[in-house]
Amino acid sequence: MIQQLCIIGVGLIGGSLARALKAAGAVSQVIGCGRDPVQLQQALELGVIDRAELDPVVAVQAADVVVLAVPVGAMGGVLRIIAPHLAADTILTDVGSTKASVVEAVQRVFGYLPPRFVPAHPIAGTERSGVAASFAELYQKRRVILTPLAETEVDAVDVVREMWQAAGAEVVEMEVQHHDEVLAATSHLPHMLAFTLVDTLARMEEHTEIFRFAAGGFRDFTRIASSDPRMWHDICLANREALLKVLDCYVTDLAIVREAIASGDSAKLMQIFTHAKKARDEFKQ
Amino acid sequence: MIQQLCIIGVGLIGGSLARALKAAGAVSQVIGCGRDPVQLQQALELGVIDRAELDPVVAVQAADVVVLAVPVGAMGGVLRIIAPHLAADTILTDVGSTKASVVEAVQRVFGYLPPRFVPAHPIAGTERSGVAASFAELYQKRRVILTPLAETEVDAVDVVREMWQAAGAEVVEMEVQHHDEVLAATSHLPHMLAFTLVDTLARMEEHTEIFRFAAGGFRDFTRIASSDPRMWHDICLANREALLKVLDCYVTDLAIVREAIASGDSAKLMQIFTHAKKARDEFKQ
Repeated sequence: MIQQLCIIGVGLIGGSLARALKAAGAVSQVIGCGRDPVQLQQALELGVIDRAELDPVVAVQAADVVVLAVPVGAMGGVLRIIAPHLAADTILTDVGSTKASVVEAVQRVFGYLPPRFVPAHPIAGTERSGVAASFAELYQKRRVILTPLAETEVDAVDVVREMWQAAGAEVVEMEVQHHDEVLAATSHLPHMLAFTLVDTLARMEEHTEIFRFAAGGFRDFTRIASSDPRMWHDICLANREALLKVLDCYVTDLAIVREAIASGDSAKLMQIFTHAKKARDEFKQ
Repeated sequence: MIQQLCIIGVGLIGGSLARALKAAGAVSQVIGCGRDPVQLQQALELGVIDRAELDPVVAVQAADVVVLAVPVGAMGGVLRIIAPHLAADTILTDVGSTKASVVEAVQRVFGYLPPRFVPAHPIAGTERSGVAASFAELYQKRRVILTPLAETEVDAVDVVREMWQAAGAEVVEMEVQHHDEVLAATSHLPHMLAFTLVDTLARMEEHTEIFRFAAGGFRDFTRIASSDPRMWHDICLANREALLKVLDCYVTDLAIVREAIASGDSAKLMQIFTHAKKARDEFKQ
């Protein structure tokens, strides 16, 4: 049971964590902190948080666990404000979609890697954002990846693991860099491809017509393009290296498919499509 | 009410049409024709068709309406078999995802465009295939595009329109070329991008790990990569010109996004992602 939990950034991710822990009786008090008084007030009214606090310095006081749930590009700014005010035994964790960038920000602000800092990333979310979109079941049976460092204390990792387990998640551990490579492939690249496709089509002259005749497949394929632009902008830049690496592989393969279509290379197309279907069908199970 | 309906290719699309028309009482008898005796037998047992026929020549005899529901690459072969045996007043229609290629195949086989040929395309489907996946509600509130030609008789168009309306669809008309351009953008390109992405990731060494940590966004984005490879191979080649045109636009835009990420061009990324989100949000409504 966490006595005092401070969540900085009470949106879909932070709000859903608060809801889940309250539903599980795994937290006594949740202090929500954010820059938008309207969102915070809404979080209070929805019962997502017990206390709203605009000032991060005040919010982290006496907190047992502080969860940074702001876009990855905003982590550094928040860290600079709270770092001098964190109690020595307060556990600091985050929910950032990229891990190397957050670890770097922590190293930069503190000048070292604090032993009670536990980098974490819940693999969950929807294309919606804001506290109104949060719900207690978001993390049920979803994976949360912890990327503890050599410096990280084991009991701090235990607290963060148990927090996410209480929220319904399955917790695994991974190296920072491996996390960033895996997520670049399965999450960051698809988001970038979807944003780009919708942007491309929306700039075509007959785009009203185009979207009018789109079917379920297109809806599914482009759903993630409704995600928060700021959040994904931050992720693309924060995980730049791993993202560009997998993007370049993809662009190379796309050129091969283009050539197969242009030259009518049936065998090549069948090989690629069949291989993809097999892999996707296996993944379904 | 259609007295005798012949469906050549009783899979997801043909089977669902038969089920919908039967449910609506809009057909007396459905003759199913296909090359796979197992699929045909299953269609009979499921009550999707009233009679199974392996020989297309026999199947089309005395049919009021013949629906070609085979992959677009197989249309020419079926047309060559049935063309000499179609009664003068039998209406011929299809469900092909590309329209220019089907019209060309008809022109090639008949030597002219028969006045009772009505090109059609229901914008519906799932990533599944085969008669077992068919269901009567597939076309409810979905759009069906007819692309009648200068030669097409109005009463034949009326019959096909009413058939699809009876199946629950909203029927619209469009020029052949415009259909192919719109569908290249909203359907053919996304399928190609999804097949390519899953193929790329599945060839990476750590692909088990990659798929293991994929979330809901990835599932949605890649669902269409479970679609029938043969069907999509045919579509890519049949609609080659329109598909390559929109693919090239996409690849150009992707290079711009890549450059924005590589150079850390925040403003450019925010512009593209924000524009995409706005367009996708509007499309949702």
